[in-house]
Amino acid sequence: MREGVSGGPLTRRELLSMIGMSAGGAAMYQAMSSLGLAADSGFKGPMQLSGAPTGAKVLVLGAGIAGLVAAYELRKAGYQVQVLEYNSRAGGRNWTLRGGDRYTELGGFTQDCKFDPGLYINPGPWRLPHHHRGMLSYCKTLGVALEPFMQVNYNAYLHSSRAFGGKPQRFRTVKADYHGHVAELLAKVVQAKKLDTAVSVEDQERLLESLREWGALDANLAYASGPLSNDRRGFQVDPGGGLSGKPVFSEPVGLSDVLSSGLWQALPLCDIYDMQSAIFQPVGGMGMVGQAFGRELGALIRYNAKVVDIDQDQRGVTVTYEDTVSKAKQTARADWCVCTIPLSILSQIPMKVGTPMALAIAACPYAASIKVGLQFKRRFWEEDEQIYGGITYTDLPISNISYPSTGYFSKGKGVLLGAYIFGVDAAEFTAMAPEQRVAKAVEYGARIHPQYHEEFDSGVAVAWHRSPFTMGCFGMWTEEARARHYENLCNFDGRIVLAGEHASYLPAWQEGALMSALDAVGRLHRRAVSGGTPG
Amino acid sequence: MREGVSGGPLTRRELLSMIGMSAGGAAMYQAMSSLGLAADSGFKGPMQLSGAPTGAKVLVLGAGIAGLVAAYELRKAGYQVQVLEYNSRAGGRNWTLRGGDRYTELGGFTQDCKFDPGLYINPGPWRLPHHHRGMLSYCKTLGVALEPFMQVNYNAYLHSSRAFGGKPQRFRTVKADYHGHVAELLAKVVQAKKLDTAVSVEDQERLLESLREWGALDANLAYASGPLSNDRRGFQVDPGGGLSGKPVFSEPVGLSDVLSSGLWQALPLCDIYDMQSAIFQPVGGMGMVGQAFGRELGALIRYNAKVVDIDQDQRGVTVTYEDTVSKAKQTARADWCVCTIPLSILSQIPMKVGTPMALAIAACPYAASIKVGLQFKRRFWEEDEQIYGGITYTDLPISNISYPSTGYFSKGKGVLLGAYIFGVDAAEFTAMAPEQRVAKAVEYGARIHPQYHEEFDSGVAVAWHRSPFTMGCFGMWTEEARARHYENLCNFDGRIVLAGEHASYLPAWQEGALMSALDAVGRLHRRAVSGGTPG
Repeated sequence: MREGVSGGPLTRRELLSMIGMSAGGAAMYQAMSSLGLAADSGFKGPMQLSGAPTGAKVLVLGAGIAGLVAAYELRKAGYQVQVLEYNSRAGGRNWTLRGGDRYTELGGFTQDCKFDPGLYINPGPWRLPHHHRGMLSYCKTLGVALEPFMQVNYNAYLHSSRAFGGKPQRFRTVKADYHGHVAELLAKVVQAKKLDTAVSVEDQERLLESLREWGALDANLAYASGPLSNDRRGFQVDPGGGLSGKPVFSEPVGLSDVLSSGLWQALPLCDIYDMQSAIFQPVGGMGMVGQAFGRELGALIRYNAKVVDIDQDQRGVTVTYEDTVSKAKQTARADWCVCTIPLSILSQIPMKVGTPMALAIAACPYAASIKVGLQFKRRFWEEDEQIYGGITYTDLPISNISYPSTGYFSKGKGVLLGAYIFGVDAAEFTAMAPEQRVAKAVEYGARIHPQYHEEFDSGVAVAWHRSPFTMGCFGMWTEEARARHYENLCNFDGRIVLAGEHASYLPAWQEGALMSALDAVGRLHRRAVSGGTPG
Repeated sequence: MREGVSGGPLTRRELLSMIGMSAGGAAMYQAMSSLGLAADSGFKGPMQLSGAPTGAKVLVLGAGIAGLVAAYELRKAGYQVQVLEYNSRAGGRNWTLRGGDRYTELGGFTQDCKFDPGLYINPGPWRLPHHHRGMLSYCKTLGVALEPFMQVNYNAYLHSSRAFGGKPQRFRTVKADYHGHVAELLAKVVQAKKLDTAVSVEDQERLLESLREWGALDANLAYASGPLSNDRRGFQVDPGGGLSGKPVFSEPVGLSDVLSSGLWQALPLCDIYDMQSAIFQPVGGMGMVGQAFGRELGALIRYNAKVVDIDQDQRGVTVTYEDTVSKAKQTARADWCVCTIPLSILSQIPMKVGTPMALAIAACPYAASIKVGLQFKRRFWEEDEQIYGGITYTDLPISNISYPSTGYFSKGKGVLLGAYIFGVDAAEFTAMAPEQRVAKAVEYGARIHPQYHEEFDSGVAVAWHRSPFTMGCFGMWTEEARARHYENLCNFDGRIVLAGEHASYLPAWQEGALMSALDAVGRLHRRAVSGGTPG
């Protein structure tokens, strides 16, 4: 655990954890960034396939987003489609836990979710950026209503157990003070004519003017207590009305304290492409997408079907699966197979493919992550602290506290995301029993919100490495592994093609799963109509 | 008109116009800032007055937010309250124009709003910041549902007719490139050890590390094309899935072009206290607040009552008003009067007060502003450009295009705010007939969204200087005028006290009106229970 170590800024690992990307440490972050995590998907509108060969059959393995999209498009194009799904519901990691739901993880721990009606958490994906056009388009087509996700909240906190005596700071003040000091430092360099001469005199003047506005500097180019800085960082006594309304100005935090706090590490979060507003969530939980697909595809999906063997020959694919209720084994056969089973599971299933694809399937470790949903007796974060949605970031192992972006101002109980844990901390939390994870999340969170002690009601905790249907959260490609294996992963092997977020440049995102499914389906269709040559 | 003048950054006036604060130019902006525009109101929870003297009567003039709040609290405390309101509805500037509404402005122009059911614009206030606790509290009490207002949208545009060939730029790229260049400039100064020695070596190291993260600099401290910058500014070809998903990186705009464009002037907008997320709007339009108060107060409000004379003596206040329908004159009498009539109107009404208050009433000019609502045949900004809510800023006279923060992804027609005009441009637009204002807004807007030509359906335009009930948008206190007159404006004059946004440190905001009403009501109550001494 990191808390309690005094002095010094957060380490890079801590930053990565804070921004929710640390699983594999810096190398992974670099790999993700360089390979496009955080990006528009290139979706150009609904797929228009037609003219499937008469009677052509496709087996789709897995009813997560990739499998659902593949099945939806293949059926539309005229294929006979069957989907085999391990769970008793559609969606896969697209999943919402609500009151009354029961979840049993590997190792046998069973949790009964006790949330009030209408309250939920999304153990998996929870956000739909405005540039994930594929996801937004399917939501529109399927009638899944969307509402804004409050990614950035200036009134939420940045918290370091080693800065400001462990007292959480409002995002607003850290951002204003960091910008202000950066602007002042650079403005004074410009004023002293110490800037590189490569910048023209005219540009230097414009730069100075821009820094003044942008950094809220005063007439002396100083970032100081007063109306300009307070118009960003907030006031000590806020302006009001009549005779009692005169404001009192707050005092910015000094440069050295801002820098040593390390809290600036969270500032770029609202600027990351994937997090930029507008960003949405389905009304009622992310699982509404999987549910809608499930309704749409109906009997095409065979639930409780655990794939145990994947075979193929020159003419087709034979999949053996076990009914998880009756334990009976059955087989299904089709001309083609779109396999969307996570590599963490697929690597354990006997499968007749060549060495290149087999090596690719084995090459991708999966991230551990944990989400903990906590129900409280009231929405104290709104009532006491005026935090309506958004995320508090902390260097404690819980990493995030995310306040619900729905039901604002409502009375009664409320559920927040009490932890979103990655990397080493996730391994530690995965090893705990669910109730211990919940207790730990409450213990840590109470250091930011003391109301936790009084108001805590119940919780659920999903550790993805113990999820029976994925055994991990998402595929973590290093740049090296991707360079070596990615094409082999995506290329057809005989009559089998893979899809899923692991087969995309948008790892961990539903849009990646969706786009990989469209790419795979498009290639499958071209093969099928050209006579089925598997080469 | 400003457009067409080539070269050079926007002037300060243009900046002020762009950010929606220019009416009185820089002096006003300074005054507003230094006096607390953009601030929390100091609201500390519902007012708890009780024990009004038996039979004590209060006349409230005006059923805008200040008058409604005053009447609500005074009734609760046990006073006999009557409200006189010029309009036939409650709310005042809290007002929503919907299809079927008719509005006649000074000069006689009548507009019939032809928007589709559910579509609207708010000619007056349109946003409720999370720190305007008074407004949020009354909304909760009155059952007015709130939804997030999308203030910042990284996919909306910044537009200058004099930069980038008049082509609008995505907010995302301007922000990323400005931050990146600022970070690179300062980082290189630090690296070259040219920073002021007042910054310790340790802090300089932390600064360098922070600039690298915050500015998305590469290993050479450069802001350059690649995964890091593209994770902020977006990609040229976005990452996708399967074999077709490899991203192509976009190229940042150079420092000189970023600076000369002047578009950086809009960057601080999301950081201004009043605009910081979370920020809300009532579901169905801002006018839902006035309507809810109107329902709540019922027969206490006398509508269509135009105040023509305000008299007082040692024992009470006598107000003469004209029924705007029957033209009959009547009088009302009470022990006290809370007058919330805008100063622009009040300064023209005979009123028995001493010189200090009379001078204060005359000292405050009112801002001109214009809002134009445009209905289009479809929501092309969402369908074609993936802009879901948020605001495009331009140096054209229309200043803002604001996309609706509700009904996202819906089919059918859509209404956006096609212009929000201040200052000199507002004077020019006020002089036009409403249909000309609409036509001009369409003409200018088409330079940003060419779809305007094809998709425009109908529009309405409210010029606040021609509004019969306010003759202006809001009171513009200079620092000097406030220093001289504000106390005299707020102090009791005999049995009369004033309230409204003009009597607050939050000019132009409903929260200012509300807080001034609470302040006035509190003082009135203390006087009344202490025996009515008016001194």
